[in-house]
Amino acid sequence: MIILAVDPGTRRAGYSVVRSENGRIAVLEVETLVLSAQAPLAHRIHVFKKFFDAKMSEYLVEALALETPFLGKNAQNFLKLGYLRGILLMLSDIHAVPLYEYAPREIKLSVTGYGGADKEQVARVLSTMFPGLIAPRFLDATDALALALCCVWHLSF
Amino acid sequence: MIILAVDPGTRRAGYSVVRSENGRIAVLEVETLVLSAQAPLAHRIHVFKKFFDAKMSEYLVEALALETPFLGKNAQNFLKLGYLRGILLMLSDIHAVPLYEYAPREIKLSVTGYGGADKEQVARVLSTMFPGLIAPRFLDATDALALALCCVWHLSF
Repeated sequence: MIILAVDPGTRRAGYSVVRSENGRIAVLEVETLVLSAQAPLAHRIHVFKKFFDAKMSEYLVEALALETPFLGKNAQNFLKLGYLRGILLMLSDIHAVPLYEYAPREIKLSVTGYGGADKEQVARVLSTMFPGLIAPRFLDATDALALALCCVWHLSF
Repeated sequence: MIILAVDPGTRRAGYSVVRSENGRIAVLEVETLVLSAQAPLAHRIHVFKKFFDAKMSEYLVEALALETPFLGKNAQNFLKLGYLRGILLMLSDIHAVPLYEYAPREIKLSVTGYGGADKEQVARVLSTMFPGLIAPRFLDATDALALALCCVWHLSF
């Protein structure tokens, strides 16, 4: 089972690709797609689409994982999140793969055993599990890796 | 100048294509894309993308017009609007056409001369301007036609 988890953002989009086989998990990628702040939003959305479309083909991704969205203080940010989620929903249909959603608390709970864990606690647990991860690149995409693992574990039971 | 105006919805998406030439406006299409309520949302988003991608190619659309989004009572509806707007933003980049946005009041004002006009008043004015429009199909997509005209008039001055 190959899972792509994405933490979308119009400036930085963290993502992770993991493979789960007979209870063993291999982290294939933990990275961040950086989108130029100078580029128009429409162009960044298009780049985002092409990037994840290619990733899904490259890895023959079998499931997409996303965080459940919530409306924060800024309605404009929520709308921009909608733009990118719309692209990911479309990609799940194009590639005919299911899309799973998990709440932030659920993700933290499944990784650290505590739903209120902060970003650093999550990163620490993940570093222990996968000592080979390269710190600077990894920290940015921690949430995406945690999300991917949460998805693997949910699908395994 | 050929303009495509879209009033996006995950169930019904009104749209209109108009051509403006030397101050004369021709209404090429005023229709509604109906998306199956039975189909998963991801599939409907994909159908929406393919439909408007094809329309833009068919008419060699030169500008996209949208209403400015606003957060109503329902955050989930706002998010779904974001999904479809994200697709339209991406299409504007794919087809390299500008995207213009107008507030509902601005659209009503430019069509009826009154920003607080209701749907029926807008439809009445449009019917007078374009007597050939077929009522049932047209009523659903009135907002999109009003939006297209608002865009034409703004770009002409």
